[in-house]
Amino acid sequence: MTCGTIHGVGLGPGAADLMSVRADRLVRGTRHIAYFRKAGRRGHARTIVSDMLRADAVEYAMDYPVTTEIPVDHPDYNDRLAAFYARCTAHLAALARAGEDVVVLCEGDPFFYGSFMHLHARLRAQVPVAVVPAITGMSGAWTASGQPITWGDDVLTIATATLPEAELARRIRDTDALVVMKIGRHLAKLRRAVAAAGRTGEAWLVEYAAMPNERVRPLAEADDTAPYFAILLIHGRGRRP
Amino acid sequence: MTCGTIHGVGLGPGAADLMSVRADRLVRGTRHIAYFRKAGRRGHARTIVSDMLRADAVEYAMDYPVTTEIPVDHPDYNDRLAAFYARCTAHLAALARAGEDVVVLCEGDPFFYGSFMHLHARLRAQVPVAVVPAITGMSGAWTASGQPITWGDDVLTIATATLPEAELARRIRDTDALVVMKIGRHLAKLRRAVAAAGRTGEAWLVEYAAMPNERVRPLAEADDTAPYFAILLIHGRGRRP
Ligand SMILES: C[S@@+](CC[C@H](N)C(=O)[O-])C[C@H]1O[C@@H](n2cnc3c(N)ncnc32)[C@H](O)[C@@H]1O
Ligand SMILES: C[S@@+](CC[C@H](N)C(=O)[O-])C[C@H]1O[C@@H](n2cnc3c(N)ncnc32)[C@H](O)[C@@H]1O
Repeated sequence: MTCGTIHGVGLGPGAADLMSVRADRLVRGTRHIAYFRKAGRRGHARTIVSDMLRADAVEYAMDYPVTTEIPVDHPDYNDRLAAFYARCTAHLAALARAGEDVVVLCEGDPFFYGSFMHLHARLRAQVPVAVVPAITGMSGAWTASGQPITWGDDVLTIATATLPEAELARRIRDTDALVVMKIGRHLAKLRRAVAAAGRTGEAWLVEYAAMPNERVRPLAEADDTAPYFAILLIHGRGRRP
Repeated sequence: MTCGTIHGVGLGPGAADLMSVRADRLVRGTRHIAYFRKAGRRGHARTIVSDMLRADAVEYAMDYPVTTEIPVDHPDYNDRLAAFYARCTAHLAALARAGEDVVVLCEGDPFFYGSFMHLHARLRAQVPVAVVPAITGMSGAWTASGQPITWGDDVLTIATATLPEAELARRIRDTDALVVMKIGRHLAKLRRAVAAAGRTGEAWLVEYAAMPNERVRPLAEADDTAPYFAILLIHGRGRRP
């Protein structure tokens, strides 16, 4: 019997028609589908494909054992996640060895700060794995902002709001264009870092890019908290004939 | 009569099935199609859609008046490009005012170092303009490399190889993950900058990502020249449970 393939399939920023033609075909055709979700939730990736699955699709929901309950630098956080990824890997590898293909749904692009990467690293030595790139959340965000992110020789820095405040401020000062991911609980710190870099007037907050509740506001007018799907942007101002 | 819309449609890194479902529909359905190309060439964007156009599609090829014949900092370069973008804008705006929709093909994502941005900036005050984001060339490149680009809190710096050597070296030293675009004639300089930053052993050169002639090599084993479609990558090594 031939081994099946585990496909890490990027879904893009949110709108179902921003998925690639390749991803669309794989999602519609697959018998086995797997996706991460916060325990107790439906899962955002699963929601994007809700009208696309085969009637006989077999679903494997991978519920994160922790998200923000334990700090990321706590040893338990690491141990529990590692055990979780090992369990998911064992389940998916067993399906592949039984000859089944599986589509693992990924938000945005799988290889850009994605959870699938943790399965990919474990699966690739065991069974065939294929990755379908996708439109990133940040492409959705700068498109929603109505302005290009980089021109000419602009340097674009991409950072996560989880960095220490001083390091964020230094990065924000030292770049033409900026994207900050993973904002959530870190918005107040990020705001101080943008202000320390003297760039508050250039900063935009984009929430739920390419989703029905998409929202684009100057950082100065944003709320005190940001949802999980939020990206901060500073647009480059490089050469433009 | 209602005004038509100019759609800046991202095609993704190269493979036709990595276009979004939305882009695929727009390209297949449009009467009017426009695209940039180097004078005398077929045009890469046009090649990607070659099997997708309506039989009665009206094509508007926008031939760059200069590419590398004049240095970018020469005043003529700027003047000639500005006049060229103004001509293209006038043509497209006239079509929209006559009630026609137009699809402008864009390589990768339109708002990420794209030529369409120069039309967008001129058209948006005159006629309706819509932008369809897409998979970037760099997503195609890191997918081709088989390794994720960013993990955990990694900082990703995106720079163009057109920057001065010392500035490139400084940027390459001061980042976790790296993407360098627009390599072409600048490969020798980029190589020296990577070496000065002490990171040659981590660097990969990806040519023609997601195209039939895709090629991934360690920078140390790459040729002395790089094609237009080439991206340098250094993968991040951030937190991974
Ligand atoms: C774990 S990362 C995954 C990134 C994803 N793989 C991508 O390519 O965009 C999650 C972060 O992505 C950002 N994000 C992804 N999609 C988004 C969207 N549609 N709107 C706003 N932010 C988004 C948010 O900053 C969020 O905290
Ligand atoms: C003018 S920029 C346009 C970038 C495009 N808008 C995008 O989203 O990728 C052209 C540069 O993009 C990079 N590039 C775009 N697509 C590529 C691909 N498929 N393979 C390798 N490099 C690519 C190369 O570095 C090239 O010099």
